[in-house]
Amino acid sequence: MKESLTYKNSGVDIEKADKLVSSFASLAKETHNAAVLPDLGAYAGLFALNLEGMKRPLLAAACDGVGTKLIIAKELNHYEGLGQDLVAMNVNDLLPLAARPLFFLDYIATGKIEPEALESIVRSIANACKESSCALLGGETAEMPGLYAKGDFDLAGFTVGLVDQAQVPKPDTIAEGDVLLALPSTGVHSNGLSLARKALFEVGGLKPTSKVNGLEKSIGLTLLEPTALYVSQVFDFLKNHTFKSAAHITGGGLKGRLEKLKLNHLGLSVNLSAFECPLIFDHIAIYGRINHEEMLKTFNMGLGFVMVVSPETAEAVLGEANNPWLEVGEVSTELGVEFYSEA
Amino acid sequence: MKESLTYKNSGVDIEKADKLVSSFASLAKETHNAAVLPDLGAYAGLFALNLEGMKRPLLAAACDGVGTKLIIAKELNHYEGLGQDLVAMNVNDLLPLAARPLFFLDYIATGKIEPEALESIVRSIANACKESSCALLGGETAEMPGLYAKGDFDLAGFTVGLVDQAQVPKPDTIAEGDVLLALPSTGVHSNGLSLARKALFEVGGLKPTSKVNGLEKSIGLTLLEPTALYVSQVFDFLKNHTFKSAAHITGGGLKGRLEKLKLNHLGLSVNLSAFECPLIFDHIAIYGRINHEEMLKTFNMGLGFVMVVSPETAEAVLGEANNPWLEVGEVSTELGVEFYSEA
Repeated sequence: MKESLTYKNSGVDIEKADKLVSSFASLAKETHNAAVLPDLGAYAGLFALNLEGMKRPLLAAACDGVGTKLIIAKELNHYEGLGQDLVAMNVNDLLPLAARPLFFLDYIATGKIEPEALESIVRSIANACKESSCALLGGETAEMPGLYAKGDFDLAGFTVGLVDQAQVPKPDTIAEGDVLLALPSTGVHSNGLSLARKALFEVGGLKPTSKVNGLEKSIGLTLLEPTALYVSQVFDFLKNHTFKSAAHITGGGLKGRLEKLKLNHLGLSVNLSAFECPLIFDHIAIYGRINHEEMLKTFNMGLGFVMVVSPETAEAVLGEANNPWLEVGEVSTELGVEFYSEA
Repeated sequence: MKESLTYKNSGVDIEKADKLVSSFASLAKETHNAAVLPDLGAYAGLFALNLEGMKRPLLAAACDGVGTKLIIAKELNHYEGLGQDLVAMNVNDLLPLAARPLFFLDYIATGKIEPEALESIVRSIANACKESSCALLGGETAEMPGLYAKGDFDLAGFTVGLVDQAQVPKPDTIAEGDVLLALPSTGVHSNGLSLARKALFEVGGLKPTSKVNGLEKSIGLTLLEPTALYVSQVFDFLKNHTFKSAAHITGGGLKGRLEKLKLNHLGLSVNLSAFECPLIFDHIAIYGRINHEEMLKTFNMGLGFVMVVSPETAEAVLGEANNPWLEVGEVSTELGVEFYSEA
C-alpha cells in the first residue's frame, strides 16, 4: 500500500519553515525600536507612528528586488551582501522624497529552503536595517518546489517611510546655477547586472572567479559589492539643509535617472571628471564592446545618489568636516542632460 | 565585427518595461482615492494619513505571495484570478488586527515580460484593491532572464493598514462560552497547492483540464478559484461590533491557524457540520490518500476567516439581515482545538 501523502512529502516542510521563521524573528528583533509593538499573532507587524510636530504626515512606500545579482551570488555561493542590496534598493528609494524609513519587510521565495544561505541573507537584511535606523517588521519565506529549482530563490523588499508634506522637496524652486551634489556608489549596485554578466562572462569569456587587472577581488566578488546605503548621509544633510530634487541612481542608469529628475524646465550639465568611475565599469565596457552612451543609460557609473541644492547650500555642505558629498554638475538653461569631461 | 552589446540584447527591454509600467499606472489610478498624492518622480508612492479621532495610530504591515497556485495558472494560461489571490493573501492578513488596509504594492518578477499575462494580473490586482477600498500605490516589475524561464514568473505583495491601538482586538477578554464565527472560503485559496497538485496530478493522474464528479469547472479552474476578500465583510461587522481574536486561515490550515489563535488560555470546540467543506477537498483527499488530520493541517477546509466574539455579539450578528457569518464553534475550558461532527 502506498504511503499516504503529506504536505511535507509534497516538498513543503512547514516545521523547517517555522524553525527558520523563529531564527529570523530573533534577527529582526535586533532592529526593533520602541515603535515596534510586540507580535500579536504573526499576521502583520505593528508599528506606532510618532507624528510629533508634523502637520500633514505622508507615508511613502517603495518596493524592489535585487535583480539578477542573485545569480552571481549563487554562482559564488556568496550571499552575505544580498540583504544589504535588498534593503538599499528600497530605503534609498524613499530618500528623493526626504521620507525617513520606518520599517522594512522582505519576501524570500525558494525551491527548497537552505537554512544557511537564507540565514546569511536575513542577517545581512537585519544589519542593513539597523544601519538605516529602520525596523525589520516582518516578511515572508515561501518554499515553492516546482516554481524555483532547488538552490534558486528570489528576493523582494518593501519599505514604508514618513515625511511631513512641508518637507517634501520642491523642484519648482530650482534655478539656473543650482548645484548637483552626489554620493559615490560602491560599484554596480543592483542594476545592469544582466548586461554586466553578458559582457564579462558570455562575450568576455571570464568566470566569476576570474581576476582582472586592477581589481582587488575576483570579478564576481567585485560585482557583488553591496549597494551603498544612503539613509544616514542624506538625513545628516537634512538636519541643517534641504534639497530641491534628488535621484537614487538605479534602472536607466546615471543618464536615465538624471533625465527623469524634476528640473523645473531647466537642464543639467554633469562633469564626468568630478568623480571616480569604478574600474569594474571599464571592464564591462571593454569586454562587452559597449559604447559609453549605453553604459551611461544602464549603470550608475560611480554615483549612487544625486541631489540639486542652492549654491549657498552647496557651499555650506562642501565646507563641512567629513563631508561625503561631491560637486558633480550644475543646473543650466540648456534643456536635457549634458555630460562633459575636463580635458 | 561583432555588434556592440546593449542592455536590450542582454535580455532586458527597458522601453517595453516602461510602456508596461505606464499601462499599470493607469490601472492603479482607478484605485486611488484622495489620500494618494500625485506621482512625484516614481521612486515611492505617497499616501496622506487620515488620523481623525485616533489616539495612538498604529501601522500594520503584511507581506505574502500566492505560492504554487502560479504553476496551475500557467498550465491553464488563466491568470485572471491571481491578482485577487495576491491582494487577498495580504489584506486579509491585516484583519485579525482590525487594521483597515490603506494601500498595496506588488512585486512581479519574470524571465521575459509577456505583456498580456502581466496586464491581466495587474488588472485583477487593481480590481481586488478597489473591492477592498485599498489603493494600489506602486510596485515593481522585474525582468530577470536567467533567473526565471521565459514564461515563468513570481508574484509578491505588500500591504499597509491603519488601526487605533484602542481598537486592536483583546484576546485576554475571551471567556468560556464565547462564539467562533466564520466566513466561508471560496475553495483552496492560496495555501496547500503543492500538496493538492501532487495529490491530483502526480498521484491521481488527473490533468488541470480534467473534469471530475460534482465539480462544475475543470479541476484546474476549480483550484484557481480566487481567494475570497474579507475586508468589506469584516469592516461591515466592525461598524457596530468588536471581535476578541481572529484568524485568516492560511498556511497551517484550519487546524494550524486555530491552534495559533490567541485564546486566553482556553480551548476551542469546532463543529465541522456547521459549514460546508468544498468538494475539491474531498477529491484532494481521495486521490492523494491524505488523512483528515493532514487535510486539516494543510487546507482551510471551507473556512477562510474566523473570529471569537461574545455570545451577545454572536446573537446580534447572526440575527442581522444578509448576515454572512456562520456559527462554527465555541470557546471551552478544554485546552487545544477539538473538531467534532454532528452524527
